[in-house]
Amino acid sequence: MTIVKPSILPGFLELLPRDQIVFDNLKEIIERNFKFYGFFPLDTPMIEKKEVLLAKENGETTKQMYEIDSSSKDMVLRFDLTVPLSRYVAEHYHELEFPFRRYQISKVFRGERNQKGRFKEFYQADIDIIGDNSLDIKNDAEIPRVILSILKDMNFDQISFHINNRKLINGFMKSLDIENYDEVLRAIDKVKKMTKENFYSYLLELVKSNEKADSIIEFVSKDLENEEIIDYLNSLEIDNEEFVQGLEELKEVYKYMKIFGVDNEYIRIDLSITRGLDYYTGTVYETFIKGFESIGSICSGGRYENLSGNFIERNLPGVGISIGLSRLYYSLNELGLLNNEKNNNIDLIIFSMGVSYEYPIKILNLLRSNNYKAQIYFEDVKFKKKLNYANKLGIPYVIIIGDEELKENKVTFKNMQTGEQILCSSEELITKLNDIL
Amino acid sequence: MTIVKPSILPGFLELLPRDQIVFDNLKEIIERNFKFYGFFPLDTPMIEKKEVLLAKENGETTKQMYEIDSSSKDMVLRFDLTVPLSRYVAEHYHELEFPFRRYQISKVFRGERNQKGRFKEFYQADIDIIGDNSLDIKNDAEIPRVILSILKDMNFDQISFHINNRKLINGFMKSLDIENYDEVLRAIDKVKKMTKENFYSYLLELVKSNEKADSIIEFVSKDLENEEIIDYLNSLEIDNEEFVQGLEELKEVYKYMKIFGVDNEYIRIDLSITRGLDYYTGTVYETFIKGFESIGSICSGGRYENLSGNFIERNLPGVGISIGLSRLYYSLNELGLLNNEKNNNIDLIIFSMGVSYEYPIKILNLLRSNNYKAQIYFEDVKFKKKLNYANKLGIPYVIIIGDEELKENKVTFKNMQTGEQILCSSEELITKLNDIL
Repeated sequence: MTIVKPSILPGFLELLPRDQIVFDNLKEIIERNFKFYGFFPLDTPMIEKKEVLLAKENGETTKQMYEIDSSSKDMVLRFDLTVPLSRYVAEHYHELEFPFRRYQISKVFRGERNQKGRFKEFYQADIDIIGDNSLDIKNDAEIPRVILSILKDMNFDQISFHINNRKLINGFMKSLDIENYDEVLRAIDKVKKMTKENFYSYLLELVKSNEKADSIIEFVSKDLENEEIIDYLNSLEIDNEEFVQGLEELKEVYKYMKIFGVDNEYIRIDLSITRGLDYYTGTVYETFIKGFESIGSICSGGRYENLSGNFIERNLPGVGISIGLSRLYYSLNELGLLNNEKNNNIDLIIFSMGVSYEYPIKILNLLRSNNYKAQIYFEDVKFKKKLNYANKLGIPYVIIIGDEELKENKVTFKNMQTGEQILCSSEELITKLNDIL
Repeated sequence: MTIVKPSILPGFLELLPRDQIVFDNLKEIIERNFKFYGFFPLDTPMIEKKEVLLAKENGETTKQMYEIDSSSKDMVLRFDLTVPLSRYVAEHYHELEFPFRRYQISKVFRGERNQKGRFKEFYQADIDIIGDNSLDIKNDAEIPRVILSILKDMNFDQISFHINNRKLINGFMKSLDIENYDEVLRAIDKVKKMTKENFYSYLLELVKSNEKADSIIEFVSKDLENEEIIDYLNSLEIDNEEFVQGLEELKEVYKYMKIFGVDNEYIRIDLSITRGLDYYTGTVYETFIKGFESIGSICSGGRYENLSGNFIERNLPGVGISIGLSRLYYSLNELGLLNNEKNNNIDLIIFSMGVSYEYPIKILNLLRSNNYKAQIYFEDVKFKKKLNYANKLGIPYVIIIGDEELKENKVTFKNMQTGEQILCSSEELITKLNDIL
């Protein structure tokens, strides 16, 4: 038989079982919270029509789209969960109730160049709230509340939601009579990656005025308490309509985030946050773990004016956020921030020492009917190898059944960590397990 | 803006939110049991190397494989979860402990022609136990035990596991001096779809002997109690080695299935079951819901001699079973056998009647911190429309807060089913909810 080298394609993520359990644990925390906060599950196809995914030119992302080599040339792998959502909401508009709250946690595909921590197939975990014709701004304040619960369940407490508002920035730029404000915003998006000098000269080139460049620098660099930033924004007394509306929205989101239980310490009004230029139109969020800002925003999103404009003649505004789960896992793992303690699902394993398996399986059935996660080992190997199996799998307790145990209708119960072992009846075993598990 | 018709490709499955909840419930039952019985999660990439997926010629299935239109021509979508498993086990051989028990519940892709209940993208839910060099036959008996738990959790109690053994059939054919027994097996695989007469004449053509055809017909048509079939097989006194071994295995699997708690009523030794000809080498299973045999086997599998022969020079025998989850959902739904009662995740929704949202959100926070699944509605619409939203979403309880409630620091708690409503304090609300939820 010809042997093919067993390997996966470069740029794909695959985990060993114990790491997969850690990954699944993060995923489970996210899903549990999404459900708890009242979001409906969706599971759209991984393969969509090309014309649907290309309905909105999405810049870089669509260039990274994987096409299926089919005769119809109309099958592509989705590159995010947002375009499928916009198609779904338009397609099922009459069957949905609005505001429509949905979550989806699933893989998306992008032909990115190979790069550390970037994958060609990766999980996104998204929530969105879609309104019909309008959507109250307070919804924007609830989204970070969901994320806070998730991150707390992951044992992260040092979290910072950076919030801003696109109308506010746009209005500010317009008040300065800056016409090419798209380009300026794109520059601002990179401000944290540039030196002060480089940013200034780049900006100056764009706005061609020291005064304007100074104003912009001052605006995006405000590193003050949230209330002070609001005072500063009020003090600007800009009467541009967009600015005024954006400021009003930002204040509301900030106020209601706190009412939802996202305390002030978790919030940072950050006027340099812009997010995906073609997309967001109001609130924008990024989320950082304090002390680990270098891994970037672990969860970003915002408000968009119209989700499904490419698919339906309806105004469907929405707000949402997305966790790049595969990337988050990778970063946290690299930083040693993951709890790897629980690396198996099983509490007990049963070994027979040469006795027939009827009795050991009865004990197994008893354990399972008492809701204990137990398994049995059938292979005919030396005892040492059996114990080694339990050890390697991280199974904390072992049950040993030999002639002695069988004769006395008992079992030997061994704690793998302490090495302690006792002989007990099955009733005593269950009582003991009720205490320790 | 040009409007693109929002639609999915033909042959793909997509559900409305309330149906998705029902689907996810089935999936959750499967995953919970797979974990409980001690299987490790795996999540292999959806896109694999073409040479890997083609390492073993798999007949029809590989013809249905989707290729990615990439320059390297080496990316394809997986068509099952078994080939990726065989690649994974070979690739990570030195990092795994054997017997290696793994589950995977995920989508696979096949370019099948459009057909009712057949999808181009569908979920498989697989468990397998892989041994290193050998794997005890009792493992074959535990697999149906896992499936029984799953189906009972889905409220199906009328289940029938049809079991057989490939060595037994092969040995039987060899004892009749039938050389083209592969073809005969392929014919047997279709016996349930043919009339008796057609099957007989087809068989006769293959074996060219009335006597042999009669023997085969007698063999595959035995519709007796399990013990009687074993008596019949013993009475044949065939001394072909393969037959003897197959019979021994079948008896063991039957015996230990019962010890594992799969009672005799759930088991049917069925000598006409053959399953995937190139693949299985010992035990084979199919699973039927009694009275609904027409939907076919909902869960099939068996024993294979060597999982990863294409990838590693090691003998890795295994046994596994696969639930075609998307197909199962579709069939059960068509037959009205699904429990659609719980079609939302939320127990309570809060409506403000024109009062500011501080107090309503405080009530929401209180409910959530007491672990109640609650949401709040912010849109400024008529009360009737709000109640209609709760109704459509199937939310059983509504909390109404107006001037009166705000002034008295109370809430109105309404049961949507009975229409009954009471005014109570938040403490009284929690006490009441503790009773009813």
